[in-house]
Amino acid sequence: MRRIELGKNLLSENDRVAQSLREQYDAAGVRVINLMSSPGAGKTSLLERTAEALHGRVNMTVIEGDLATDRDARRLRALGIATHQINTGRGCHLSARMVAEALESFPLRGCELLFIENVGNLVCPAAFSLGEHKRVVTASVPEGDDKPVKYPVAFRTADCVVLNKIDLLDNTDFSPDRFHKWMSQIQPAAVVFEVSCRTGQGLDAWFEWLYEVVSVKAQPAAPKRTQC
Amino acid sequence: MRRIELGKNLLSENDRVAQSLREQYDAAGVRVINLMSSPGAGKTSLLERTAEALHGRVNMTVIEGDLATDRDARRLRALGIATHQINTGRGCHLSARMVAEALESFPLRGCELLFIENVGNLVCPAAFSLGEHKRVVTASVPEGDDKPVKYPVAFRTADCVVLNKIDLLDNTDFSPDRFHKWMSQIQPAAVVFEVSCRTGQGLDAWFEWLYEVVSVKAQPAAPKRTQC
Repeated sequence: MRRIELGKNLLSENDRVAQSLREQYDAAGVRVINLMSSPGAGKTSLLERTAEALHGRVNMTVIEGDLATDRDARRLRALGIATHQINTGRGCHLSARMVAEALESFPLRGCELLFIENVGNLVCPAAFSLGEHKRVVTASVPEGDDKPVKYPVAFRTADCVVLNKIDLLDNTDFSPDRFHKWMSQIQPAAVVFEVSCRTGQGLDAWFEWLYEVVSVKAQPAAPKRTQC
Repeated sequence: MRRIELGKNLLSENDRVAQSLREQYDAAGVRVINLMSSPGAGKTSLLERTAEALHGRVNMTVIEGDLATDRDARRLRALGIATHQINTGRGCHLSARMVAEALESFPLRGCELLFIENVGNLVCPAAFSLGEHKRVVTASVPEGDDKPVKYPVAFRTADCVVLNKIDLLDNTDFSPDRFHKWMSQIQPAAVVFEVSCRTGQGLDAWFEWLYEVVSVKAQPAAPKRTQC
């Protein structure tokens, strides 16, 4: 009983900070995307391709969440993207508090689109709101087409799913039809893009979706609440 | 401060149950492997190929950990493998308590090798001992060669790493040399097998390792302690 009560307190604390973050984002006129996936699904590759495409059109910055190393941040800085690294150590997700602390030394001034690349984990990050406007889940072909139904927590709260590595379709048993069928059961409202960050296939539709996200400057709705 | 104290209590509770599980395994003469990986790295495919190879030589059973569905358990039961499904809901890892409860209705009698397939998550499962004799991490080529250094918690406690999907080496930027370099930094004592569950390549060495694990009937050492 004591554990359940403490859990509730922790979650509402995260929601409180997330609400404050949302106000901070909106005051700065920045749109924020919480980007989640399994390890190695291609979150950083997607941000690399996105940074290249949006260059000169959208002022984009990134907060990188990783257990260890600044390897992903260095990849993005090499493309001229302002990137702040958060290392969580053993921590399995980013919390609203971590993002709030990052923003103390990483101001949003001039930024139009902030990506928060969460820790590679298809379970825990979905349970902690970061005050984001949109949630994007990156799935990938080699993981298999049943991930939406096997990891419903992440897919159920997604506004958008980017299915990456479609260049490997012929080398796996992945069925796009089955993937879309599971997505329609778990979260029919999510838009799904099939892409290959390796070949560039399908990315234009993702970029267009991002331009629409950035074009909405006011967002009166409250952020997603912490889920678990 | 209160959170830290509660964390310690939770962890030592898990260690206490894990120690009891280890005694239960040893009394039953069963060797136990805790199998971890990212979602979709190929844990269940590895168990399918293993079940086929060990058929008639080793009595093998499986406990399946998944957030949702019994899809993996059904795949293994179709091969005649006694399999018990644990669904964790939003839970990001198996705990020793979950395994202890499963064993109340899933006796180990006659079993020589028990695989516990953990929830697909390269972070949290490594922090909770299940009393296992060996920890195996399944990595996969499409995830990238830097996973040991980016997710060190799981790889640091591994006795064995099965690098799956090497049939995709020519279709990715994965470098086996870099992967082995990272492994030698993070956990040089771990044995690494390069395999393809799709083509069967490399699996014989993994089966031989399993025969060695099963051949050790007594294990006086204490189980790995919970890490976080």
